[in-house]
Amino acid sequence: MRSVSVVGIAQLPVKKTYTRSLRQLGAAVTRAAMKDAGVDHIDALYASNMLSDELQCQKHVSALIADEAGLDGVEALQIRAATAGGAAALRVAYLAVASGLVDLAMVVGVEKMSEGAATPALAKALDAQRELADGASLISQNAALMWHYFRHYEPPKEALAHFSVNAHLNARSNANALFREAEYKTDDVLNSRMILPPIHLLDCAPICDGAAAVVLAPSDMARNYGKHPVRILASSAATDRFRAFDRQNPLHLTAVQLSSEKAFRQAKLRADDISFLELHDAFSIMACLTLESSGYAAAGEGWRLAADGEIGIGGRIPVCTMGGLKARGHPVGATALYQVCEIVLQLSGRAGPNQVSDAQFGLMQSVGGIASTVLTHIFGV
Amino acid sequence: MRSVSVVGIAQLPVKKTYTRSLRQLGAAVTRAAMKDAGVDHIDALYASNMLSDELQCQKHVSALIADEAGLDGVEALQIRAATAGGAAALRVAYLAVASGLVDLAMVVGVEKMSEGAATPALAKALDAQRELADGASLISQNAALMWHYFRHYEPPKEALAHFSVNAHLNARSNANALFREAEYKTDDVLNSRMILPPIHLLDCAPICDGAAAVVLAPSDMARNYGKHPVRILASSAATDRFRAFDRQNPLHLTAVQLSSEKAFRQAKLRADDISFLELHDAFSIMACLTLESSGYAAAGEGWRLAADGEIGIGGRIPVCTMGGLKARGHPVGATALYQVCEIVLQLSGRAGPNQVSDAQFGLMQSVGGIASTVLTHIFGV
Repeated sequence: MRSVSVVGIAQLPVKKTYTRSLRQLGAAVTRAAMKDAGVDHIDALYASNMLSDELQCQKHVSALIADEAGLDGVEALQIRAATAGGAAALRVAYLAVASGLVDLAMVVGVEKMSEGAATPALAKALDAQRELADGASLISQNAALMWHYFRHYEPPKEALAHFSVNAHLNARSNANALFREAEYKTDDVLNSRMILPPIHLLDCAPICDGAAAVVLAPSDMARNYGKHPVRILASSAATDRFRAFDRQNPLHLTAVQLSSEKAFRQAKLRADDISFLELHDAFSIMACLTLESSGYAAAGEGWRLAADGEIGIGGRIPVCTMGGLKARGHPVGATALYQVCEIVLQLSGRAGPNQVSDAQFGLMQSVGGIASTVLTHIFGV
Repeated sequence: MRSVSVVGIAQLPVKKTYTRSLRQLGAAVTRAAMKDAGVDHIDALYASNMLSDELQCQKHVSALIADEAGLDGVEALQIRAATAGGAAALRVAYLAVASGLVDLAMVVGVEKMSEGAATPALAKALDAQRELADGASLISQNAALMWHYFRHYEPPKEALAHFSVNAHLNARSNANALFREAEYKTDDVLNSRMILPPIHLLDCAPICDGAAAVVLAPSDMARNYGKHPVRILASSAATDRFRAFDRQNPLHLTAVQLSSEKAFRQAKLRADDISFLELHDAFSIMACLTLESSGYAAAGEGWRLAADGEIGIGGRIPVCTMGGLKARGHPVGATALYQVCEIVLQLSGRAGPNQVSDAQFGLMQSVGGIASTVLTHIFGV
């Protein structure tokens, strides 16, 4: 296989609502990523989007974006893994370039959640027959995990709120983040509107619109493109029992563990070699559980890293350095591509006030549903 | 890149309605394909399904099928390209195995169209803003192409009916086909219910349930698995202007042409080296236009191959040898995997009464929407 690098990136600022259409956002960010890579053509476009079936009545977004971007005749496919779709598209592009069959691959994620009822559509990441039938949603299942976490480990009541505080702090200096004004303390999280006990509004990533894209190329050709190539050192995917409460221990995310282990093996790195983590903090409980399940903290101890300030930009293991899903925003199908852009900025020393010092290796994790599917990618300069 | 082979196949008989659930059909055919390949594990599962978002309220079918099939922890992603999704999943599995990163890849397609209103969901393969808003559906757009074809080329009125007659004839001896009883003449097609002028019922592939799966492995390991390995000699994808009537000549399918040319180039074969064609005959006009656009007939002349009997099993270029989408059935997300199974049976001399003599190379074409996306695969022994 060929080594693969990211040679171009582009992200549109996350917003509550864009007036531009889904296809226009997808095409705009595609062209911007091509410009960043310094290329005037690509060989294939792999698209990620989760909700257009319901919200835009579109089930063919890959060809739609390719057409709108003027990429005459290009290969275009859509890749999905529920809320981890962006990482799934990245993985397919990685496989395509690694195989030698595709040289320049575009990975574009776009989501326009403002056009309709996103939450019921998101819930279809769960089991319709056995979870939706019981009234479940992604919020309710995360609430259930959070309830179990507090009951089982009895951490202080503000334990998980620290993750939201960190995310909002980091988002303040990210021009592409949705929430750049707010500065919260843990009390603000606990006093925010109760969405579904024990989840408060400030435990949740927002409903929003956004698009991000990256261009991949063989590493040995990377210097021909872009100015800041970053290598993909590992790409892995794993699944778990589909329903969280069919698992022996719902607080241990086996797909996080498996995909992390595979990724560390492929990259020939250990957890503590990683300079910073872009985690899937769609809910604060998920940030905590992914930290624990990928080996960064013992079971029941993940929140301590946040409480002790170890996940801050200057901490031992910075997390969600540009605001994460919580505060940069979580336009679902685009989220992982925002994460890749942020990792590339960190590894090329362009993260501005959010720069992690001596950033050598960045790890990105993407969670589909309640970690039924998890993808892990590791990047390095 | 590594050469890739199909080492196991499985198909469930296409039916109007299965009582088994989507996940059960997907899991059953996955296990059956593993059995056929003689393997007790796989490294990755790439799933195709088009309509579960609407019909089953499921947006995470890859992990759902992996769980139901008992494939603990396996990589599982879903791949889409509207009505060409099965071929898109095949292509991704091909890329994964070719890259050297995945050894045993499952490609599973499953569709359960009986559970709701399939036709409006299928229409989302079109442009919601500019086609659905005008009342379009896949049927109406195929009807429009057919109307233009007759107006422009003025063939005899039964010109396209020959494709349906051929498909139904071939389906009679395919145990997995939906329609095994009927034997039609062109008059039956022209006298069947008018769906949307000029499309009659017997111009259309049926709404149905089905599941099919294939296992891919590196060709140099293929002899360790299964008994009838078949090589994938080419895999290609291309797009066109998204809306058929934005194209300079809507009767020429550029994505068919481009993906065919790429595939012939990769396989180092010419059109007339191919022993038989599994075309995407969702509508009789589509069978005709794909024949013309992939170089098997001049523009306006594709129907003559059917009228002259050249597409029959014993003809010059057999088409849809096991009944095609028209008569085997078109459970959309599964269709391309049925096609692969049929091609493998042909190339390994196991096609029974439908056997094409001296079958060396089989070509499969998959059409997404109105050929906005087209994939072409070529197989050989």
